[in-house]
Amino acid sequence: MIRIGIDANGGDRGVETTVPAAMEAVKEDKDIEIVLFGDENKIKPLLTNSERIKVVHTEKTMPMGEENPMIYIRKNPDASLCMAMAAAKNGEVDAVVTSGPTQGVVMAAHMIVRKLKEIDRVALCPIIPNYDGNIRLILDVGANVELKKEHFGEFAIFATVAAKEVFHMNNPKVGYLNIGSEPGKGRALDKEAYEYLSELEGINFYGNIEGDQVIDAPVDIILCEGYGGNICIKTLEGTAKCMGRMLKEEIKASLGGKIGYLFMRKNMKRFQSRMDAKKVGGAMIFGINKPVVKAHGNSTAEIFVGAIKQVKTMAESDLINKVVAKLPKKATENE
Amino acid sequence: MIRIGIDANGGDRGVETTVPAAMEAVKEDKDIEIVLFGDENKIKPLLTNSERIKVVHTEKTMPMGEENPMIYIRKNPDASLCMAMAAAKNGEVDAVVTSGPTQGVVMAAHMIVRKLKEIDRVALCPIIPNYDGNIRLILDVGANVELKKEHFGEFAIFATVAAKEVFHMNNPKVGYLNIGSEPGKGRALDKEAYEYLSELEGINFYGNIEGDQVIDAPVDIILCEGYGGNICIKTLEGTAKCMGRMLKEEIKASLGGKIGYLFMRKNMKRFQSRMDAKKVGGAMIFGINKPVVKAHGNSTAEIFVGAIKQVKTMAESDLINKVVAKLPKKATENE
Repeated sequence: MIRIGIDANGGDRGVETTVPAAMEAVKEDKDIEIVLFGDENKIKPLLTNSERIKVVHTEKTMPMGEENPMIYIRKNPDASLCMAMAAAKNGEVDAVVTSGPTQGVVMAAHMIVRKLKEIDRVALCPIIPNYDGNIRLILDVGANVELKKEHFGEFAIFATVAAKEVFHMNNPKVGYLNIGSEPGKGRALDKEAYEYLSELEGINFYGNIEGDQVIDAPVDIILCEGYGGNICIKTLEGTAKCMGRMLKEEIKASLGGKIGYLFMRKNMKRFQSRMDAKKVGGAMIFGINKPVVKAHGNSTAEIFVGAIKQVKTMAESDLINKVVAKLPKKATENE
Repeated sequence: MIRIGIDANGGDRGVETTVPAAMEAVKEDKDIEIVLFGDENKIKPLLTNSERIKVVHTEKTMPMGEENPMIYIRKNPDASLCMAMAAAKNGEVDAVVTSGPTQGVVMAAHMIVRKLKEIDRVALCPIIPNYDGNIRLILDVGANVELKKEHFGEFAIFATVAAKEVFHMNNPKVGYLNIGSEPGKGRALDKEAYEYLSELEGINFYGNIEGDQVIDAPVDIILCEGYGGNICIKTLEGTAKCMGRMLKEEIKASLGGKIGYLFMRKNMKRFQSRMDAKKVGGAMIFGINKPVVKAHGNSTAEIFVGAIKQVKTMAESDLINKVVAKLPKKATENE
């Protein structure tokens, strides 16, 4: 039985998403138990079946636009996100799922569940759609602003194990996001990272990939430092959304467009879903003592169910211990 | 009369693009004279009207995939790109247009035409399409890998003057590409840059913008450091192209799709051209003694004409002297 703590108040839709998702998840999987941390006055009317679902009441939730998450977390241990994290910390649940604000989620995981002692840095690892219909993992996209080459090694190992255990990928390839494909490209850090990753055991290192390859990647896992990675996926997301908007506008702009759309409605829906990785799962936070998944802020119940199943697989597959077993041993451990 | 040096052999299509473009440009603008640096045996059959067009013969051209541009340039002063740049250096032409390989072009401009003494760093400044149909300038996208805050000031001033003189923008807004919108976001460099730009005279500083805003920007000019900027525009380009491909595939995938397309062909073409900034012009190289424009490698003649006109406007408007006049005076100049 895997017990999952859910930040029921979190995200743009709060309990409207998390409660139906919780009921659906336990219905689909008999090995899931859920603890909903949230406002019971809002949860109870929606919780038509509470089998294997417990409710722990709190009205508070971290605002989506919270500018000082560290201070907020210190002052509000009874916010739904913080309570879910604390439950993971003290073993009441095995994993956490939340749609809360990204920086706040990473901060809460760090401060409450805490970092694995075997690693140096936490990373935020979302799932992105790709041209071939398969997903890709990309990290770090914003948990850090400054990194060293060894951190990419930790990220590569985590993502490799996760790709195998959670996404059933076979010998996943690892690429490094850079401003050119040849080995000597980029800043000092990028060159060092390339060399380091080339020699790291336990990963299948492909080499550099450029920004225009991210959406049609010759690798399964894309490594990047926090600033560049954040710019990259935000640009990808914004460009994809904008093109979708422009396409809709052009279709509606004339009678010909509207008629044409009637004929190709199915094709358009297929086009739209090719660029939607949300159904596969949310962003994994690497480096924390328990599995944490951050679902999209505007997740529907269906999407949130995917995130619950994803974190359940992370916990069930003993992902964290498997990752730790594969990490390069730190020098101090051998003294 | 503005004399423009053209790297006639350069780019994917060489003289097939540059020669027709040269003839069209002089036809449309009586104030343009062109010197074509390229293979006269290939040029002459295409040059049906040589009024105000001179040919300087060279067979050599820098390969598009040249991995060591610095060495190539030193060894091949008679390559078409290098000869065009040398002509600008010694005043035989007022400006240069090329479709050659980006890194090679930036390097050749630096090594041959040379950097303005009043500035520290050269920047590569392409033009990108945007949701509202107007273009945006973005720099630096790869001429540098490490920058200081003062460099952003130089770039902001150049882009502001260019936006006004070449693209007729009124009081162009300047934004800084960052991982969050609030003032304190990003790495040490990003915070310093924000403060510095907030106080810089002569520019209309808006603040930070994020990756997902680049395609629908609340600013006219986007500043970024070379690595992040390169990742950003490559990702934008790659995502836009990929979505275009997927859309075509989905349209062709069924009879309904193909029929529907017949009705909305005009709409689709409009959609496509909304994402195409190439017709407006090529990438400007800031910080060189003479105006240099790098057109897309696969430019058609029509697109190359746009680049010729763009560099002509840069020269005619005395862009470089206007930029120098607006730059913050360097400390050493006052000693």
